[in-house]
Formats: sequence, structure tokens, C-alpha cells
Amino acid sequence: MDSINRLLGPDVGALLRDRRYDQLRSALMELEPADVADLIAGLEDEQSAVTFRLLPRDLAADVFSYFDAEQQEDLIARVGTERLAVLINEMDPDDRTQLLEEVPAEVANRLMALLTPAERSITQTILNYPEESVGRLMTPDYVRVRRNQTIAQAMGHIRRYGRDAETINVIYVVDEHGRLIDDLKIRQFLLADPEGTVESLMDESFVALQVDDDREEAVRQIERYDRVALPVLDRRGVLVGIVTADDVADVAEEEATEDIQKMGGMEALDAPYLESGFASMVRKRAGWLSVLFVGQMLTATAMGLFEGAIERAVVLALFLPLIISSGGNAGSQATSLVIRAMAVGEVELRDWWAVLSRELAAGLSLGILLGGIGLLRVILWPGRVEAYGEHYVLLGLTLAVSTLGVVTFGTFAGSMLPFVLRRVGLDPAAASAPFVATLVDVTGVVIYFTAAAMLLRGTIL
Amino acid sequence: MDSINRLLGPDVGALLRDRRYDQLRSALMELEPADVADLIAGLEDEQSAVTFRLLPRDLAADVFSYFDAEQQEDLIARVGTERLAVLINEMDPDDRTQLLEEVPAEVANRLMALLTPAERSITQTILNYPEESVGRLMTPDYVRVRRNQTIAQAMGHIRRYGRDAETINVIYVVDEHGRLIDDLKIRQFLLADPEGTVESLMDESFVALQVDDDREEAVRQIERYDRVALPVLDRRGVLVGIVTADDVADVAEEEATEDIQKMGGMEALDAPYLESGFASMVRKRAGWLSVLFVGQMLTATAMGLFEGAIERAVVLALFLPLIISSGGNAGSQATSLVIRAMAVGEVELRDWWAVLSRELAAGLSLGILLGGIGLLRVILWPGRVEAYGEHYVLLGLTLAVSTLGVVTFGTFAGSMLPFVLRRVGLDPAAASAPFVATLVDVTGVVIYFTAAAMLLRGTIL
Repeated sequence: MDSINRLLGPDVGALLRDRRYDQLRSALMELEPADVADLIAGLEDEQSAVTFRLLPRDLAADVFSYFDAEQQEDLIARVGTERLAVLINEMDPDDRTQLLEEVPAEVANRLMALLTPAERSITQTILNYPEESVGRLMTPDYVRVRRNQTIAQAMGHIRRYGRDAETINVIYVVDEHGRLIDDLKIRQFLLADPEGTVESLMDESFVALQVDDDREEAVRQIERYDRVALPVLDRRGVLVGIVTADDVADVAEEEATEDIQKMGGMEALDAPYLESGFASMVRKRAGWLSVLFVGQMLTATAMGLFEGAIERAVVLALFLPLIISSGGNAGSQATSLVIRAMAVGEVELRDWWAVLSRELAAGLSLGILLGGIGLLRVILWPGRVEAYGEHYVLLGLTLAVSTLGVVTFGTFAGSMLPFVLRRVGLDPAAASAPFVATLVDVTGVVIYFTAAAMLLRGTIL
Repeated sequence: MDSINRLLGPDVGALLRDRRYDQLRSALMELEPADVADLIAGLEDEQSAVTFRLLPRDLAADVFSYFDAEQQEDLIARVGTERLAVLINEMDPDDRTQLLEEVPAEVANRLMALLTPAERSITQTILNYPEESVGRLMTPDYVRVRRNQTIAQAMGHIRRYGRDAETINVIYVVDEHGRLIDDLKIRQFLLADPEGTVESLMDESFVALQVDDDREEAVRQIERYDRVALPVLDRRGVLVGIVTADDVADVAEEEATEDIQKMGGMEALDAPYLESGFASMVRKRAGWLSVLFVGQMLTATAMGLFEGAIERAVVLALFLPLIISSGGNAGSQATSLVIRAMAVGEVELRDWWAVLSRELAAGLSLGILLGGIGLLRVILWPGRVEAYGEHYVLLGLTLAVSTLGVVTFGTFAGSMLPFVLRRVGLDPAAASAPFVATLVDVTGVVIYFTAAAMLLRGTIL
């Protein structure tokens, strides 16, 4: 649809200049809200406000939902109060909640004041749920019917209230207290005898989310049961909203982005990369980077213990980066595998032993492979005697043994650290590649020089 | 729903032992297919085959779709040919395609032979599309109507064909050649005058995917337009299938998993972590690890150039791991940010300059911060004169300058490498933290010893 934008883009400028507003308005109404949002975002400030004002109210609310937080704030400042009140009341409750979370508190309060009592009450209820909970993600726009209604009555109800619902693929049956007792597909209604009752369609089996579940739970359940929507219940079993698959796809993507950023060794950004503020981005990176830098200073301390050995055999220093970083690389693989397997629910805390035994075996195999490569590198090197001295075979063995040790330790640390973090209630994704590498570097220095002391004593040491 | 399984789990054993098959069958029919699949997967081989045979055919096909590849193969071997033919013909085409992709070729051929000509033709068409394309992901089970039908006729059609459709939230309008001309919501039909025509509801605007689009495109479009399903067109504009949001959520998750594994410095696994074969997993890790190990050997070569400097001032070696790994950490942050921003479409190739200027500024800021910490670490260290000699301030400055250089270079390399990879047609996610760290380590050695040579010449060098 990008091509549509490019084709229509210049026209908007011309239509605005000639004040052919009716024509512009009809052109915009033929587009998808997401595309209209893109188009308006590409205009200059004054033009964008004028164009936005042309939109009919329901389209305006949809388009507004597609703007990013900055553009929304900008338009809130430019649009008159009356128009703003219409807009904010027309928005879908889940989109509105997201807006109120993202704008500064004083703007949020101003917007809340513009809501009708009914919409304000819906919004306040949603905002009362914990951040990142299913409650914040749900929308109260669904259709519910009673078991003793006839199909014809229920269809009448669906026709009346289905207009504003986010999906009418699924119709919910509730009891007199509003508790969910079944979920029925719209096709069941379409295919049923109009004189029959809703009850005749029911099997009283359904899958539901709890309102205070973590929103990642919604991702897992929607994927598990392949649904386009899931109902959300409060603790008494009362139906309070639905979560739709398209919102869940957004959440899954956001959660993966957060994990990837954490795994890269930083705090997760709140906004898309190019849109997040420079200072806040640097702060989110500086924190972990400083901690790791200070932690990495332990390598200098550890190496200080072996200064005598380095003085006697400078050749040892040459291979140090190679040895320790192979441990960091092996650890990075292990931690990435385990963190992701945990995030998608393939691995639970209780699987630690299965993971540990698998990773120790993998670490040993990989260590033998790399150690072998290292050994061959030294003993087959053309200028080996000049470069490494007459004891080059022993040096090669030192390299091989310490690579094996460091790679095995790296794999061990990388695979177990996410378990430790989760066990103590922290986010396993904080076991980033840089964190594991730093941990393994310090240990690697000790492993390497200890192996050297044992194998090279009496020759070059 | 896990609790339901645990509660029902033991019962199944008892019901099977007592051969109360009718009772077991009714109990299973009340559960969700995903839960029945879990329950059967938890039984012993013989019991699981017996239980599976009890299921009515449509439930059996649904349950079968939820098994993992290994369980599916196992059941294919245990279920009789006749039953298997029913099963495979009842499966949703998209689930069936996935099964045929995952089982060994001879099993796939056997299954294809069991399909009815109609289903075989559907499946062959889908299998003809490239792997990871929208064509492989789509299902041909949707409802389409003609513009000149009345609403009542269309509703009759929807009632007749909607039973097998994956969603009837959206009804597609096609012309006499099968080309898509509009998408209408079911609620529009429900609310319309039955005597009116389909045409009266149409706005002739729709969003569609192309059958040979990459499946990541489906993720982006579903998220962009917040749809529960999108139509798929071939090159002539003919409607050939639909992609639903729940399938797209699976794809988004798989793609993120693949990226995370690549970013951890390995090839992506094909199966969940604990289910992937040990040998294949080790192979997928050994490849990159060996390449990086060999690449990292360049650090030994680079350090060989500065062997004289290390001999004269062993203290330089002590800080080497600290310096080079700070570059690797900074690079890991930058590459993770950029790879993910590319994957979700926030950053395109043409944004390279915006990213570069942002990252150079970030790298300099972070480098100044870390360099400052390093300088303070040396000049405020209690035993600084004993540990680092009388020229400890110059040593601290060397540390600070080279940290600044290495962090800036790491940030630069980490942010630009994904662009380079994508530009030459490779997967940007291959710019893993270990890859960037290795690249930066080699450069870091050169930066560090060059800074030392300039700042310390005439004092300790």
C-alpha cells in the first residue's frame, strides 16, 4: 500500500492548496486508516492539522490510534477541545488506554476530563490493572448473550451491538451475574434454527484469560488455542473483556524486541529505535556497559596475579584474547538458546537438569573441536619454533586444554545464568551475551594461566 | 487449562483400563483440541494410539495438528491406512502443508497418495510456493461471494460454506475471474437489508498480500492494519487464500526465535530447544564458533606485532582484556538494536546515515564515560605507584584514550555490519554479538597498542 501513499501523497498538497476539501475528504475515506495516518504524518504541521480535521469522526479516531505517541501529542495540542472530546470518546478503549499511558500526566488528565462518564469509567477500570497485564490489553467491546434467549433474539442483539464490537466471530454466553459460561462461534448462530435457544448450541467448554495474567500469557494462549480472540475474566469469573489476536501479535513483537535488546546487554528502549530520545537511549546503554566495564576490571586484577608468568613468557599473552573470547562466544550461544526457550515456554525452571546435562555435553564437544583447532594452529604453524620457541608442542597443548576448559565453562555459565536469574525473580534475558562474556573472561584468565603453570612449569615458565 | 489436564490425566488411565471408551470419548470431546493433544502426548505409546482412535474424525484432525512433528510421525506409523486417509483429508490445508514439510520425504509421499484429488491439488499448489512465503502459510478455506448477489443469497452462501472456513469475520467479493474486488465484514451483512445487493455494501478498497511475499510481510501487514485475516492474491489479482492472525503470531514468534539464535552466534535450530537432536544442535553451533575462533586468531597475530612493547611493559597486557571487551560489549548493544529495528521494519537500508550519525554520537558518549571510569580506576588506585609505576597517569590516559577509541569503533562496527550484510543480500541477524566482538577484538588490539606507543614512548616503552 506504500505505492498508494506515494501516488496520493503529492495530490494532498495540491488539493489543500486549492482548498478542494470535499474532494480530499472523499479520497481519504477510500484509504485504510493506517495509510491515512502515514499520509498525514508525512505532511507539514499546519497541513496535517487541517487534513486531520477533515476526517469524519469515526475515521479520525481510527487514524489517530495509528499515530505514534509524539504525533498524537502534537495533534492534541493543535485540535480544539470540542473536536478532541469527540475523538477521544470515539477511540477503541484499548487504544485509548495506550494513549493515556504514553502521554505526559497532565495531558492524560486533560483527556480523561473530556471523556463521558461511561467511557471514563471503562478507562479507569482498565488503567487500574497492572502494567503489562491482560487487563491493560483487553477491550470491553464484545457481544454477549444469555442462554435462555432464542437464536433469533440473540441475532437481533448481535445486529444491534455487533457494530462496535472488535470481533463478532465469537459470541459470549454469560449468566445472570455476568459470569462467562460459554463461547460460541457466529457461524453456529448462522447455521442454527432461529426458533431454538442459545442453550441448545452450548457445550459449556471455553478457554479464558484472567484479567491479572501477564500479557505474555495472552500470547501463549492465543497461539496454543489458535483463536482470533480470547475472553478475559475477573476473579469471580465475570466476563470483563476480550483480547484479540492482532493485539497479541503486537505484544509478542514488543516482548521479543525487549528481550533482544536486553540480550544485547542494555535496558529495553520504550520506543522504536529511531524515535527514542538520544539521551534516554544512551542512559539505557550506559548502565549495563559501566557495570560490565567495572566487572571486567577483575580481569586486570586476575592477570596481576600472573604478571610474573607473563614476564617470563610473553608468548602467553598473545593467545589470551583468543582463549577467553572463545568462552564468551560459546556462552553467548548457550544463553541465547536458553533465554529464548524460556520466553516461549519451551523450557521451565524444572528443566534445569535436562538443560545442564545437554549443555555440558555440548560444551565439551565444542571445546574439543576448538581446542583441536588451536593445537593444530600452533604445531603446524610454519615459523613455530621462532614464534613460540622449542616447546611449541607444550604451548599448543596449553592452548588446547584451556580452550576446552573455557568453552565448557562458558557453555555452563551461559546456560545456567538464565535459570539463576529467573529463580531469584529477575528477568532471564538480563543474562546477555556481554554479561556472560565478562563473567567468562575473568574465569578464563584464571583457567588459562593455571593450565599454563601446570603444563609449562620447568620449560618456558 | 493445565489444571484440567492434571485433573483428567489420571482418569484417562483408569477409563482405558476399564475399557470405558464411550465415557472417555465424551470426556475428551468436552476439551479443547490443544489440551486433548497434550493429554494424549502424555500417555504411553499403546494407550495414546487407542485414545487417539476414539476421537471423532474432525476432532482427530484438529488434535493431530497440535502434535509436534515427532508425535505426528509416531501416530502415522501406528494408525491404520484407512483412518489415516480420513485424518489427512480432514486436516486444515495450512496445517497439512506444515506436516508434509516436516516429515521425511517417503512419509510425505505416502500421505500425499492418501489425499482425495481435490485436497491433493490444494496441497500441491501450496507446496509449490517458496518456503517462508505467504503461499505456504495461507489456507484456501474462506468464503467468497459475487457483487450481484443479494444479501440474502450471500447469507445463504455463507451459511453453506462458512462451516469449514477459518474465519467468517471477513467475506471476500470476487469478480467472474476470481479476482478480489472487495473485503466486507460479516457484520455488514448482518446489518444490511436482505433484499439489497452485495454491491451496495462495497467500497472497493482492501488490503491484500501477494502469494509470493515473504511471510514476514504477512506479520507486518496484519500488525499494521490490525486485521484478524488478510486475503492473498496471485499475480493476476486472483484470490487464492487467506492468512489469519493466529498463524501470523506463530510466524512472528518463530522469526524472532531464529533471529535471537543467530544473534547469539549460531545457526537457527529447526525445532524447540529440548526437542532438537543433539548432533544437529552441536553442528549448528560449531560452524560459527570455529569461524570466530579462527578469526580471533588474528588477535594473536596482531599482538605478535607488539610483543616487544609487552616485554618492555608487561603492565600493558593486564588491561588488554578490559579494553577490547568493552568494544565488544558496545558493539553487541548497537548490533542488537539495529538488527531488531530492521526485523520489525523500523529501520530500512536507506536509513543507514541516520543510524550511523546517531551511533557515532552514542559511541563517543559511551566511550568518554567508560574511558573516564578507566582513568579514575588507575589514578585513584591505592597501590598505583607499586602496581603501575611512576608514570601511572600516562598509563591511565592510555587506557582512557584507547577505551574511547575501541568503544566508538565497536559501536560503529556493530551498527553498520547489519546494513552491510543486508546490502549484499545476507541476513542482518548474522551480525551476532560474538561476530562483532571478534571483529572489534582484533581492531582493539591495534588501537590499544598504537595509543600506548604514542602516549608512553620515552617513559615505560
